[in-house]
Amino acid sequence: MPYLEPLINFPFVSLPLLANTPSAEAGPMILAGVLLSLVFIYLASKLGGELSKLVDLPPVLGELVAGVLVGISALHLLVFPENGAVASDSVVISILQQFGGLNVESISEVFSTQSEVISVLAELGVIILLFEIGLESDLRELQKVGFTAALVAIVGVVAPFLAGTVGLIVIFGMPTIPAIFAGAALTATSIGITSKVLSELGQLKSTEGQIIVGAAVIDDVLGIIVLAVVASLAKTGEVDVTNLVYLIVSASAFLLGSIFLGKFFNKSFVAIAEKLQTRGKLVIPALVFAFSMAFLANAIHLEAILGAFAAGLVLDETDKRKELDQQIIPIADILVPIFFVCVGAKVDLSVLNPTNADNRQGLIIAAFLIVVAIIGKLITGWSFLGKQKINRLAIGIGMIPRGEVGLVFAGIGAASGVLDKPLQAAIIIMVILTTFIAPPLLRLAFKEEEEKLEETPNLAK
Amino acid sequence: MPYLEPLINFPFVSLPLLANTPSAEAGPMILAGVLLSLVFIYLASKLGGELSKLVDLPPVLGELVAGVLVGISALHLLVFPENGAVASDSVVISILQQFGGLNVESISEVFSTQSEVISVLAELGVIILLFEIGLESDLRELQKVGFTAALVAIVGVVAPFLAGTVGLIVIFGMPTIPAIFAGAALTATSIGITSKVLSELGQLKSTEGQIIVGAAVIDDVLGIIVLAVVASLAKTGEVDVTNLVYLIVSASAFLLGSIFLGKFFNKSFVAIAEKLQTRGKLVIPALVFAFSMAFLANAIHLEAILGAFAAGLVLDETDKRKELDQQIIPIADILVPIFFVCVGAKVDLSVLNPTNADNRQGLIIAAFLIVVAIIGKLITGWSFLGKQKINRLAIGIGMIPRGEVGLVFAGIGAASGVLDKPLQAAIIIMVILTTFIAPPLLRLAFKEEEEKLEETPNLAK
Repeated sequence: MPYLEPLINFPFVSLPLLANTPSAEAGPMILAGVLLSLVFIYLASKLGGELSKLVDLPPVLGELVAGVLVGISALHLLVFPENGAVASDSVVISILQQFGGLNVESISEVFSTQSEVISVLAELGVIILLFEIGLESDLRELQKVGFTAALVAIVGVVAPFLAGTVGLIVIFGMPTIPAIFAGAALTATSIGITSKVLSELGQLKSTEGQIIVGAAVIDDVLGIIVLAVVASLAKTGEVDVTNLVYLIVSASAFLLGSIFLGKFFNKSFVAIAEKLQTRGKLVIPALVFAFSMAFLANAIHLEAILGAFAAGLVLDETDKRKELDQQIIPIADILVPIFFVCVGAKVDLSVLNPTNADNRQGLIIAAFLIVVAIIGKLITGWSFLGKQKINRLAIGIGMIPRGEVGLVFAGIGAASGVLDKPLQAAIIIMVILTTFIAPPLLRLAFKEEEEKLEETPNLAK
Repeated sequence: MPYLEPLINFPFVSLPLLANTPSAEAGPMILAGVLLSLVFIYLASKLGGELSKLVDLPPVLGELVAGVLVGISALHLLVFPENGAVASDSVVISILQQFGGLNVESISEVFSTQSEVISVLAELGVIILLFEIGLESDLRELQKVGFTAALVAIVGVVAPFLAGTVGLIVIFGMPTIPAIFAGAALTATSIGITSKVLSELGQLKSTEGQIIVGAAVIDDVLGIIVLAVVASLAKTGEVDVTNLVYLIVSASAFLLGSIFLGKFFNKSFVAIAEKLQTRGKLVIPALVFAFSMAFLANAIHLEAILGAFAAGLVLDETDKRKELDQQIIPIADILVPIFFVCVGAKVDLSVLNPTNADNRQGLIIAAFLIVVAIIGKLITGWSFLGKQKINRLAIGIGMIPRGEVGLVFAGIGAASGVLDKPLQAAIIIMVILTTFIAPPLLRLAFKEEEEKLEETPNLAK
């Protein structure tokens, strides 16, 4: 009986990268490498997240910093070929070699393939994150604070974008495209961090809290449109007005269109989910929808995350929202940290070493971006009229943290190649700093108000 | 300002497969390919699972059959290079080309990389599945039915293994290693399918039900040890007694040792999980443990799934079991179907076409395996003494379905190259058929008993 090649080559041996370089031995090693990388990522995310929590900072910051610690800048537990790292730089590969199961020929194959798998898992992580943010964003919430929140959001996008872009071009003589990208990275507001801090302060349902949350929701939508626009600009490499119009129109149409169509689709989704009887009857249709939307957004040259976000907004309107939210949580818990830790791991802090003269410009740019990022959002508190006694400072501060959306900008900018090393590092530092300072400042701003209220009690309390 | 290579090449552009063939354009296409493949996988899994459910069969069978439908045998929505498929065979790749984002050079790179990512996701799926089975297997349950269940399990492993292996060697003149592998594939019992059918029949807590579940649990453990042994035998290619002893000892020691050490680790795990305050505080430590154990099992030349199963058994003993089980469910729901659909997709049914003379031997082998698979488990009902009136036929039938564990055997056998096409297809057909016939037969066996009981009511009711 002749023993031919396997029929079901599955699932413990991975395919060789190229059909003509088979290496059956590499398969289990790729799986082992992925498992070990995930263990390092999860340990880093929990260590960083918990330490952040202990000192009362958002856990996502800790995950990011822990990522820097395990990445190319320090421990080399998690390195990627696109950083210029080779297999011998990777601690994961060294450990695999220790176990004797890795021969010399398959080292670079195992290294690049396991890195690729981790990168795609991180991409799926950010898709799930934006889907979850979409699920948590409540369109009805906006209608209550309506106009005020919209003004705050628009000023909070336009002011830092203009100040940042113009400043980088005029003061630093930067080319237009990277300046626009860096300016765009200044526009986002982290709804996750802001709403979490507000709820911790018991201010989520206050007028200020409602305006901040409303503006952050609108800002999320604006930010993702801005992202889709600049990311596509970065791809074509030039500011083409036709393209710009196409992108703004298509991004807005995609988002608004999917929300509008979603009103009809909603009922079918609930009807389908209720008819299904097997495991995953809610989460699988939801992911089919989210991944299809992500694929569609990608296919019409927008970003995959815009599709995932729109899918989340649509499903947020269904009766199944709470149940779905509950089920997405563990999935997000295991995928999203991969994204943040990998972002940190890929940051090469050596470009910020001030003893190297080449790096000083990056540090100066970082300082400039931080100032613009803070002032550009602070002024939003004064962007609306009104006789009502309101804590405008708290609103401005509440808009400061850039959080995950800012990091997404940095990641996409880096991937498309428009951001050079100092500029990327400057954006990352801006994101980290604005996110670090906002929670304590917000606490201070509300505390000051409380003290005032205690002196002169009024209706607002 | 010089624009150098990106610092944080992340996460929307994937690295090129080889450092010297960069193709930044391939990145978003790999993500798009993975998203589209996942949409096809999920649609197939739900379609197949729900149709199965409608006709009262285990959903996992439907997922498998739907996988065959979307795979290499029919629709080509999901094809893999190791089946000999090339990029032009893949509907996913054709769709990506339709959107115009894929140039000729990057086609084969995108095809092989997205296939690889899906394969690793499927591997993570089976790791999570075995972790979940471990979490659901209750060691204490066994102690109640104890000796009887152990006898049933042991006879149910030894009888089909010996009959299958000896039959294949003597009747079909097969070499020793593939015959042992095929014999081993006959030993497993699907605890998932069996316990689900029993609970649907309201027989889970009957004496018969308890013996079946107990035996299925022991069979799971025995089956995974057998799997580790034969998979490693397949790797070395010969029956080396020293190696055999090493494997039996190391697999048993690994499983029993981790359960024993787990008794101590349990408390630390609960203590750690209770101290953590950030998201994923239970599921992340659990996965760190499961993935570490999977990596460790892999590193000492056993199978990754054995480690995941042991981790599940250990964590099953903690107070956090229920909460953890709850959180693993959505994760399993999105990862496990990838495994089953991919197994189906990689089955090439053309080798079973009876009009091709070369295929007839495979069909004869399949018929032989099916007969051995059924009789070898049926006799387990008579493997123990006892004066108690007991439905021995129901116990024998309850042990018949091979389910997911049988498929894992087929997958590993194929991957290691010891199973030729007809033999692999024969095993798959055996798994499908035994799993299909068991639920209706079990219902019949219990119904007969019920009718008897109605005629002569006794204490057993």
